[in-house]
Amino acid sequence: MNFKLPFIPERPSKPRTRGLTMVMDKGLSVREAEDFMSVGSEYTDYVKLGFGTSIITPDLKKKIKVYKKAGVIPYFGGTLFEVFLIRNMFEEFVRFIQEYEITMIEISDGSYDIEHSRKLEYINKLSKIATVISEVGSKKKEVVYTPDQWVAMMKSELEAGSVKVIAEARESGTIGIYNDDGSINHAVVDAISTHVNLDNVIWEAPMKSQQAWFIKHFGANVNLGNIPPNEIIPLESLRLGLRGDTFFQFLPDNLK
Amino acid sequence: MNFKLPFIPERPSKPRTRGLTMVMDKGLSVREAEDFMSVGSEYTDYVKLGFGTSIITPDLKKKIKVYKKAGVIPYFGGTLFEVFLIRNMFEEFVRFIQEYEITMIEISDGSYDIEHSRKLEYINKLSKIATVISEVGSKKKEVVYTPDQWVAMMKSELEAGSVKVIAEARESGTIGIYNDDGSINHAVVDAISTHVNLDNVIWEAPMKSQQAWFIKHFGANVNLGNIPPNEIIPLESLRLGLRGDTFFQFLPDNLK
Amino acid sequence: MNFKLPFIPERPSKPRTRGLTMVMDKGLSVREAEDFMSVGSEYTDYVKLGFGTSIITPDLKKKIKVYKKAGVIPYFGGTLFEVFLIRNMFEEFVRFIQEYEITMIEISDGSYDIEHSRKLEYINKLSKIATVISEVGSKKKEVVYTPDQWVAMMKSELEAGSVKVIAEARESGTIGIYNDDGSINHAVVDAISTHVNLDNVIWEAPMKSQQAWFIKHFGANVNLGNIPPNEIIPLESLRLGLRGDTFFQFLPDNLK
Repeated sequence: MNFKLPFIPERPSKPRTRGLTMVMDKGLSVREAEDFMSVGSEYTDYVKLGFGTSIITPDLKKKIKVYKKAGVIPYFGGTLFEVFLIRNMFEEFVRFIQEYEITMIEISDGSYDIEHSRKLEYINKLSKIATVISEVGSKKKEVVYTPDQWVAMMKSELEAGSVKVIAEARESGTIGIYNDDGSINHAVVDAISTHVNLDNVIWEAPMKSQQAWFIKHFGANVNLGNIPPNEIIPLESLRLGLRGDTFFQFLPDNLK
Repeated sequence: MNFKLPFIPERPSKPRTRGLTMVMDKGLSVREAEDFMSVGSEYTDYVKLGFGTSIITPDLKKKIKVYKKAGVIPYFGGTLFEVFLIRNMFEEFVRFIQEYEITMIEISDGSYDIEHSRKLEYINKLSKIATVISEVGSKKKEVVYTPDQWVAMMKSELEAGSVKVIAEARESGTIGIYNDDGSINHAVVDAISTHVNLDNVIWEAPMKSQQAWFIKHFGANVNLGNIPPNEIIPLESLRLGLRGDTFFQFLPDNLK
Repeated sequence: MNFKLPFIPERPSKPRTRGLTMVMDKGLSVREAEDFMSVGSEYTDYVKLGFGTSIITPDLKKKIKVYKKAGVIPYFGGTLFEVFLIRNMFEEFVRFIQEYEITMIEISDGSYDIEHSRKLEYINKLSKIATVISEVGSKKKEVVYTPDQWVAMMKSELEAGSVKVIAEARESGTIGIYNDDGSINHAVVDAISTHVNLDNVIWEAPMKSQQAWFIKHFGANVNLGNIPPNEIIPLESLRLGLRGDTFFQFLPDNLK
């Protein structure tokens, strides 16, 4: 902080268990990752190396080191797990994780439909060797879960060993917990927020309007994900009431 | 210029008083600011350190030096003024400006509604210690000014001491002088262009279609603002007729 | 490749004649071009220095060297050719190309309508001194070609000396081979794919949905253009079935 202002919400210091920000890296170079960390390391908790990009990104080990050195946890997007799984290469996936010294694993079924009981087994199994987070929701428009299904899946995945569950929205922010135009699917979000401990949910929120909505409704320390790297400072400004959208959010009534 | 072509509109050299480009920096790292300056310093006049990002951006003093050294004037977005003001911390705001050796101040009331007479007093007061620019227009959809109100506010703010007035559009370009879909609000823009000296108005125009419209209607040397850093070369190309949208704009009739 | 997976489509190694990716550089700094090459050189064939940006980009020679050294072919966007041509400065254009040691030339008529026979003459003439690619389609909404016209123009330009023809879409991806909302103009694309050798066509496809459509319909090695620099890794992931949109595309039936 360059200046201590009053009525700025308190943020837990890192390593945090709430108020988390997960950023999506879709293929930054090593130097771009350094640039991102030089402004964003304090405000970023996890960096998802998006979908299957890790298979083809040059200098991946170097980039992973940049993130770790800056105190940020890098992990492979859930699609990578699915890419291995559909090829019956679960063991190779585990070796790939170990080869890159990755300590957190995302388990998802957004592209490849597997039995939920099987997903729970993978969560349980992998939680013995790494920190597991799991994503709920499909990337396909035709797969629609009821609010009750969202809640039931999240609860069972947390019980199976996930430390956090991620509510799917795609990179574009137009599916899962959102409607086609990017607006909030209230029935789903209300059900989740009523029945699941919010500290354990990471909401994918790539658009500013979505980030502002979650901060207004669940506070500065809501967990948010799929943030583009160059939006880390704008998002932290939103969280702290330093931007138009949340300007009044954390002020006492006598100042409003 | 890598090649001297005929029928390219003349641009005043820096420091300019018209044909200004104001870029919005939402949280660039020091090295990213250097990269931006290495291509954009000649074409950029002001860099707005957006909304309240200056409170939380690491290495802010270093970044400010990068901009100054490149001959560009950095200043804090008007929301920062409002963040201090609503907390009754005007003196602290002035000290913050001085601590960072900022020489230009933006006064706005986009988030926090203050009496216009009070805004004029701040403009007047601060114009004694720095160059003042002021922003007209609200960030809130429900606050709609008539064309006459836009004109009256701009005129009085220029009289009070602002060297330029900025026509608000938000970063998204969908409010103030624009309609919801980003198209031009003609009644407002017509009134301003008729009654206010255009050299004193900076139009926020984050979208290419908006930039092209202003260049076509008011010429290559219209003042434009809220340009993303990586759009500085594309915008200068638009200004000079080096892009499809303005390809014919500055050609003599016999070549069209 | 950081890991050899089965059922990943084979990509020709560079220099390629099919499966090409053309990226649009709208004004990267030298260091940003280095960053882009450090992740993208293997996946990028051509870099278009967009529209007339080359006239005003600082350190252009240095940037061109960065691309060449990385094994990528840089060339000037077709609008630059048109900017010279409408000023009756064809000879100066050729000298400009030579001054910057550019070995590939794009001939287009997207902004400036010239007789098609004259365009063919330029293609023929320039193909004697450089590799020529040519762009078909207008940047103007009011100029609409029939599917037959698209095919005829492409065929005649390939015969005249173009090694590839580019199907115009603008940077925004909302004209030419696309409808206003960015969706595919099927009549045009079907006609081209039926009557022109697809290895000789580069489809401008700035949006992910467009890239995914072409990969699904014409395979991993379809030629795609106007890709933003930071989308090179995501695009290659799409080509290889490492992203949700093409996840099942290259898998054998027994795994689907």
